[in-house]
Amino acid sequence: MLTENGCPKTALSIRDALEALEGRWKLLILFALSSGPRRFRQLSVEVAGITDKVLSKELKAMEMNQLIRRQVFDTFPPTVEYSITEHGASLDKVLEELHYWGLAHRVKIIGK
Amino acid sequence: MLTENGCPKTALSIRDALEALEGRWKLLILFALSSGPRRFRQLSVEVAGITDKVLSKELKAMEMNQLIRRQVFDTFPPTVEYSITEHGASLDKVLEELHYWGLAHRVKIIGK
Repeated sequence: MLTENGCPKTALSIRDALEALEGRWKLLILFALSSGPRRFRQLSVEVAGITDKVLSKELKAMEMNQLIRRQVFDTFPPTVEYSITEHGASLDKVLEELHYWGLAHRVKIIGK
Repeated sequence: MLTENGCPKTALSIRDALEALEGRWKLLILFALSSGPRRFRQLSVEVAGITDKVLSKELKAMEMNQLIRRQVFDTFPPTVEYSITEHGASLDKVLEELHYWGLAHRVKIIGK
């Protein structure tokens, strides 16, 4: 397996990834956006438990890291929509592996 | 791809995983332990940037989630060693995908 020798180069890339994805929310926001663009209010409902303040902060950080795109539409009043970028969508394998591991973890620790 | 429909059951398993792995340190600690058991002092050097207080807190949380094992050896003075469990080692695919994504992210955002 990849992690057998624990070389610093690999640790660096994992560290880069963890920094870009820090916290418990970013991957859940990406997961919500993976099924299509959302408005702020939709995200705040779909990502259960997140506050507006934190959601707003996370969206800004994710935009900076080019994981998501923020688009303003010239309607009245203006509407704002968030969508996943190609770079953000490239996290699908990470999400998939986390999903499988989360299932196994629930059986093992949470016990149902 | 798995994340296309965004069903709540998948969000739940990802949430479980993210809760168990929360923060920037746990996966880096697991990565260090994936190449063999370590003593506290070794970990604090290898996981660059972590403070002793945080390392101690993270190790306790990871032990509770059965990701790592803490063993006390009857030497004089007693020695304590941390090693990865089978459950912790089952995160190797997550680490692998994070590694690949981190490499791509560095090229794209950090630019080298």
